[in-house]
Amino acid sequence: MRLDRRTLCGLALTLLTAAAAAQGLGDLGLIVERNSGAVLVVDTDPPAVLARIEGLGDLSHATAVFSPDMRHAFVFARDGGLSKLDLLERRLVKRIVQAGNSIGGAISEDGRLLAVANYEPGGVNLFTTDTLEAVGEIPAVDGQGRRSKVVGLEDAPGNRFVYSLFEAGEIRLLDAATRPPRVVGRHPAGRQPYDGLVTPDGRYYLAGLFGEDGVDVLDLWNPEKGLRRVLPEYGRGERRLPVYKMPHLEGWAEAGGRLFLPGVGRHELFVVDRRDFSVVARVPLHGQPVFAVAQPDGRRVWVNFAPPHNDTVQVVDAESLETIATLKPGKGVLHMEFTPRGGRVWLSVRDENRVRIYDTQRLEAVGELPAREPSGIFFTARAHRIGL
Amino acid sequence: MRLDRRTLCGLALTLLTAAAAAQGLGDLGLIVERNSGAVLVVDTDPPAVLARIEGLGDLSHATAVFSPDMRHAFVFARDGGLSKLDLLERRLVKRIVQAGNSIGGAISEDGRLLAVANYEPGGVNLFTTDTLEAVGEIPAVDGQGRRSKVVGLEDAPGNRFVYSLFEAGEIRLLDAATRPPRVVGRHPAGRQPYDGLVTPDGRYYLAGLFGEDGVDVLDLWNPEKGLRRVLPEYGRGERRLPVYKMPHLEGWAEAGGRLFLPGVGRHELFVVDRRDFSVVARVPLHGQPVFAVAQPDGRRVWVNFAPPHNDTVQVVDAESLETIATLKPGKGVLHMEFTPRGGRVWLSVRDENRVRIYDTQRLEAVGELPAREPSGIFFTARAHRIGL
Repeated sequence: MRLDRRTLCGLALTLLTAAAAAQGLGDLGLIVERNSGAVLVVDTDPPAVLARIEGLGDLSHATAVFSPDMRHAFVFARDGGLSKLDLLERRLVKRIVQAGNSIGGAISEDGRLLAVANYEPGGVNLFTTDTLEAVGEIPAVDGQGRRSKVVGLEDAPGNRFVYSLFEAGEIRLLDAATRPPRVVGRHPAGRQPYDGLVTPDGRYYLAGLFGEDGVDVLDLWNPEKGLRRVLPEYGRGERRLPVYKMPHLEGWAEAGGRLFLPGVGRHELFVVDRRDFSVVARVPLHGQPVFAVAQPDGRRVWVNFAPPHNDTVQVVDAESLETIATLKPGKGVLHMEFTPRGGRVWLSVRDENRVRIYDTQRLEAVGELPAREPSGIFFTARAHRIGL
Repeated sequence: MRLDRRTLCGLALTLLTAAAAAQGLGDLGLIVERNSGAVLVVDTDPPAVLARIEGLGDLSHATAVFSPDMRHAFVFARDGGLSKLDLLERRLVKRIVQAGNSIGGAISEDGRLLAVANYEPGGVNLFTTDTLEAVGEIPAVDGQGRRSKVVGLEDAPGNRFVYSLFEAGEIRLLDAATRPPRVVGRHPAGRQPYDGLVTPDGRYYLAGLFGEDGVDVLDLWNPEKGLRRVLPEYGRGERRLPVYKMPHLEGWAEAGGRLFLPGVGRHELFVVDRRDFSVVARVPLHGQPVFAVAQPDGRRVWVNFAPPHNDTVQVVDAESLETIATLKPGKGVLHMEFTPRGGRVWLSVRDENRVRIYDTQRLEAVGELPAREPSGIFFTARAHRIGL
């Protein structure tokens, strides 16, 4: 049997590709290079950049979710782009531009659907994870026919999505287990909900309000009971200090039966009882917090800050509520991501074009990777979490 | 260039193997066939048996853990066997017999070490995950020089392991971050601790006692404070009813700030406040519970039973504490495993040689797979959990 050199080279290349593709997925992740339209595919152990995938559009504020089998990642870009990546073959599978301007999305519990929250023209668009085929446009229109920006879109147990309408001041629940998906709950909320989160156990949806104080809570186990307004203290600080950046609610931490919330416009971390949402303490901080994230073991909460304090990360003990470390990872710390069992935390240091890796026991830097203006970091373990 | 038929066939086979090996890992799992010395490698979506791996020894009571990248599984057999499997190549990589009789093990936070709890000759053996090379034998000997069986061995944050000495009545903490690993805590416990668990947040180690009532608790954040005895009611029932099977503590569920414990020798589920370990309620059950497992969203607790009620599974609402379903999956329901975000639960039905799959919303069987006397079911999502 005769083979020419070209065929043989092709065979060898296929073999090599396939060999590269046969690898573990549980310790991989993505780093967003916000101004380059690119993401890095990384291995966390040992830390290494495996590939750089380009052409994903405007990635400021971009987020990513993962298929249940962890093979594919889906990146929601700010310009309405939605990209499907293959982490094994390390390539862009497909990219669509699904709206004019969007602010994140989520993947359904069964891994079949993506829901994207849109600013422009507003509403929620649904796509299959398989081919990114559009399977639904859910308008965000209030009783007077006005369109709203959709914000704080999260997945909820039972193949549902929950999200907020900014202008209309409404929280809606979408059932994606039915075909077509349909809105099964509409709850009048406070003025201008600007972001939301689902508690890690999947039970409560909390929406922060831009237009007034307090937080609206929807009990996803009992949505028919409607919203409850809690934390009347939350948000008041914004009138005292200029707010450099609204904190990210997805970063709200839960540890030991308490929620840790970045204060809006305050140099404070709010500590809230998970049972009745009462404020049990306030921890003074180095600056205006952006993200407050709990270690997976719940023992410590890591906080980063808005400018001009964004060179700093503080670590708060979840039990004593003392600040046990003030770290200086570098200028422009935008995001923090823990390895799934909590041994390491990766910090994106935008202005230094690198990601720094800290040992969470020793609170020391143990490694770094180069990245161009890195922002979000997303590890594949997110595939198995509720409410991201 | 000339290639003979055999070389070409070899090439083609390598290509096929590599292609099969390139697949997602986040939705895979193992089913233990307890009397066949075999495990099935399964895909959960759609449900399918991918491979059957034989020659693993006595798999009654066998458990499995996964490497952080999810590529490898480690199976702890009852006969002291320790096997390393490759889930991509679907084969046994290596098997050693590390002791005469063992009762499970755990993998360190960093994924580097396995710790195996031994009955005979007692003690904890440590192995590298890489090659299964022995790197330590930690004796379990009390002040009088007597050996103890080691039970309830769990991983804890910070590359530690925690375990109990049955005869000595002691709980020990092993630091596996140092080389060599060393015992850093020895705590006198109640009589005959028989199993243990670490709460899902990694904070507390709880040991059930065979020789007296109550549960010993070690606060892993503050181990220097020693043990605390809680739940004096727990275990008393065993004098009233014959105990058909001691419940499995690893199955203790946590949901909404409460722990759900299978009553020993009672037809009851204990509901315990997570903060002070007081009993807040008891839920009457169909029989003597073995496992009580919370859905990942914490909304319901699923319970299976000792003979003669082991054809039944009951589902208890974690909020109302009402039993909302009594299911009859078949004879010999031994184990329950949820898909990571909770949409499905897989039940091994030993006496019917099948695994049945239920939709957790509709509480209906939606599929099944054949398996020879299946017992434990372990999904790869366990790679990222603390205290398994």
